Amino acid sequence: MAETARRRRSGGGAARRAARTTTQVETAATILRNIPDFDLLNDEALEIIEANAETVLAEVGVAFVENPAALARWRDAGADVQGETVRLPRGLARKLCSSAPKSFTQIARNPDRAVEIGGRNLVLAPVYGPPFVRDGGGRRYATMADFETFVKLGHMSPWLHHSGGTVCEPTDIPVNKRHFDMLMAHMTLTDKPFMGSVTEPSRARDSVEMCEILFGGLKDRTAMVSLININSPLTFDSIMMGALETYATANQACIISPFIVGGAMAPVSVAGTLTQVLAEVMAGVAYSQLVRPGAPVIFGAFVTSIDMNSGAPTFGTPEAAQITYGAGQLARRLGLPYRSGGAFCGSKLPDAQAAYESANSLNAGLLAGVNFMLHACGWLEGGLVADFEKFVMDADQLGILHKMAQGVAVTDESQALDAIREVGPGGHYLGCAHTQTHYENAFWRSGLLDYKPFETWAEEGARDTRALASAKVEAMLAAYEAPALDPAIRDELRDYVVRRKSEMPDAHI
Amino acid sequence: MAETARRRRSGGGAARRAARTTTQVETAATILRNIPDFDLLNDEALEIIEANAETVLAEVGVAFVENPAALARWRDAGADVQGETVRLPRGLARKLCSSAPKSFTQIARNPDRAVEIGGRNLVLAPVYGPPFVRDGGGRRYATMADFETFVKLGHMSPWLHHSGGTVCEPTDIPVNKRHFDMLMAHMTLTDKPFMGSVTEPSRARDSVEMCEILFGGLKDRTAMVSLININSPLTFDSIMMGALETYATANQACIISPFIVGGAMAPVSVAGTLTQVLAEVMAGVAYSQLVRPGAPVIFGAFVTSIDMNSGAPTFGTPEAAQITYGAGQLARRLGLPYRSGGAFCGSKLPDAQAAYESANSLNAGLLAGVNFMLHACGWLEGGLVADFEKFVMDADQLGILHKMAQGVAVTDESQALDAIREVGPGGHYLGCAHTQTHYENAFWRSGLLDYKPFETWAEEGARDTRALASAKVEAMLAAYEAPALDPAIRDELRDYVVRRKSEMPDAHI
Repeated sequence: MAETARRRRSGGGAARRAARTTTQVETAATILRNIPDFDLLNDEALEIIEANAETVLAEVGVAFVENPAALARWRDAGADVQGETVRLPRGLARKLCSSAPKSFTQIARNPDRAVEIGGRNLVLAPVYGPPFVRDGGGRRYATMADFETFVKLGHMSPWLHHSGGTVCEPTDIPVNKRHFDMLMAHMTLTDKPFMGSVTEPSRARDSVEMCEILFGGLKDRTAMVSLININSPLTFDSIMMGALETYATANQACIISPFIVGGAMAPVSVAGTLTQVLAEVMAGVAYSQLVRPGAPVIFGAFVTSIDMNSGAPTFGTPEAAQITYGAGQLARRLGLPYRSGGAFCGSKLPDAQAAYESANSLNAGLLAGVNFMLHACGWLEGGLVADFEKFVMDADQLGILHKMAQGVAVTDESQALDAIREVGPGGHYLGCAHTQTHYENAFWRSGLLDYKPFETWAEEGARDTRALASAKVEAMLAAYEAPALDPAIRDELRDYVVRRKSEMPDAHI
Repeated sequence: MAETARRRRSGGGAARRAARTTTQVETAATILRNIPDFDLLNDEALEIIEANAETVLAEVGVAFVENPAALARWRDAGADVQGETVRLPRGLARKLCSSAPKSFTQIARNPDRAVEIGGRNLVLAPVYGPPFVRDGGGRRYATMADFETFVKLGHMSPWLHHSGGTVCEPTDIPVNKRHFDMLMAHMTLTDKPFMGSVTEPSRARDSVEMCEILFGGLKDRTAMVSLININSPLTFDSIMMGALETYATANQACIISPFIVGGAMAPVSVAGTLTQVLAEVMAGVAYSQLVRPGAPVIFGAFVTSIDMNSGAPTFGTPEAAQITYGAGQLARRLGLPYRSGGAFCGSKLPDAQAAYESANSLNAGLLAGVNFMLHACGWLEGGLVADFEKFVMDADQLGILHKMAQGVAVTDESQALDAIREVGPGGHYLGCAHTQTHYENAFWRSGLLDYKPFETWAEEGARDTRALASAKVEAMLAAYEAPALDPAIRDELRDYVVRRKSEMPDAHI
């Protein structure tokens, strides 16, 4: 059979290979799921968790630290505020959450790359936050040059809808200034949507002002999705809340996301962790709606578990998948877009461990009904490292999510009864009319992985996935072209950044 | 937090580490799924596929090649037989299938290791069929010594329920004699259940006779599950059918399994492939029931797709997952145990590609409701290679399937409300009572993967997953002990093999 297949393709093989190796600068449309969600928990379990989350909010409460304005808002809304602890009467948080939109549009400077977040959509964004990068040469502190390289790779990745935020920490730029350079990279090196800064309320304001320039005024349009982590358990610090307040006021979207290593920041059980996640997200989303009713927000769940032997966070585990599925169900019942999943792994190298763990996480994320998947590519070593090779390895796998989400077509044509009749017992389908018509697009095909005959593969150096990925990184960067941007806008952005940087001292790195 | 965790465990850490590194010879109980299946296709789509499969059986038919007895059986059952083509009136195949059991027990010489196949059970078995093996030294033809090594590794793998069959082809033994040696290995080196030979009807008879010795007579108990591949499309050859007839007559179980590379042996579409799979399995199962009503059988689906560029089969693809899900739904509607899934990959090395592809396949297999998962560990390079390192890598991942299948407990204890109350906002759970009680078993923990601090990992040689797996292979083999077997039975088996081998000439290898 393989021989037959090889003979067959000799006709148009070269043309097809050329077509496949043409630089891909197109990005696939947002994933619209045409498949069911995997509902791991039954209704009874979900109702218990929801009731428990209300109990936590009413009895234990949440802390809004160093934030008198937030405490005042809560008091006005009917919460019981004692010191910095806010206790919410049963039902209050859920009621406040109901003004948040079920779905919203994030604009991009290329209108075709605007994304709808919520409903049946899945938007894929790259890794966020690592202080280190890794390439073939090993692990080192990330620089702004690395950051720009990741933005370029993201721009060139056809299955990635979103340029993300802090794809790595540019540690060669002072902490108080690096958000300018990161935003400039996202605004000029790609035309995909991106995220804003959250490390200081003032930096959130800078992010909004730069978007005003880029988009010629925002007029309440949502141009950024930003990551607001909850300081689990049950604590909302003033820096993150300050950024949230800035963004919500400007109708910019926030992911309200517990950051949980189960066993440390949440109970050691899945049901207990889900209870806490729900309580925290409801409190955070409710607060966003106190700041501005109708502000776009996302139900976030970043949850992993702790290795009780080493204290390290672990990824791709069954407990993480269970929480990803369960939190998705809770988010849908709450009527909010859902952020979870990602190419998570604990491995120090882009090896088999990294791939097992990442694939486990990506598969769970797809079937859990995730709407916004941060860390969908490039994540390594528990998020300490952004890895160039793994970025393209994961980004290639994201094509599988796209294809899976389409579901199975059962049309007259795809039923292929005529093909089965034509071929009959003992024949083969390689040359039949149905195959001829559909072979080009019938099957998803990796743009990275090895499908070559053993001998060819051996002659070419018996390369493993890392070596293939390393070559692909080089090829993508060689083919990269920056998308056109109005020079006047670029100049205005530059002037803004130069002026703002000049107003502030260099902070310690 | 990590620091705290490290400090905390210093007390009992050594004891716990010792407990974890004790040789595991226990095998986990069969997986009993306490989670829903993922039903990818809706009822309407399934009904269309079922109707089309009936159309295929009625209009196109199936070929039973060089098997006059089979044609006679079909004629007697009411089929339209023309030459070797058998056309089944609509409904006949499904009606005949109804006498097959929904679930059956496969005995093992260790009664605790008997497995129930069907219902909500998932039984995991290793790779089957590769002519090559690979270890750190590269790829080479498999030998009987390799075969025995794999059986030992399988015996030592706690998440593997089944010893499998042709874990690799012992190419140093003549083709007509190697089944004796393979069966001896499964019967003496492990006490887990195993598979019989299918490469000749006489070898199936030998397999039954050896089981009669091992089990002191079978008395209609099912001691083997054997793999009967359909020669897709729609063709049943006399060798495989001869083995099926032998096994069914002796009440031994058969997996009736289309062997399909989509685009070559089936239409290039998922719906068309599912139609053909269902038609083929129904014809094969129906035939088994003509041989012996009530004979145990399994609905098999080995389906991959072709890479239209190289002609190679591909694995871990979205289309393979879609077929795995869909075929599971069809099997349940037919009321038969389901075999599919496995740690499939196309990669030549146990690298990231192998792991992505394998994890995609394993996850789909779990959620598709597979009852018998062949190739659950060790598969490499499209099934051409059984890989020692990947065997233990995959076998470790199987622990995730066990844990996932348990579902989420929502008991008073797992809800952990008291823990959330105890810790409160801003605390941590590492020392709380609930964590102390449950940390040991709360989270699945890999017995292979790296969770160490970066510095420790670097000091120990910065090993990747292959290197860790290679060390684990050595450790498992060093700790291996053969399970006790009555010497009289062992002698009787040996005498049988010596006698039978002496009766036959050496065949060409």
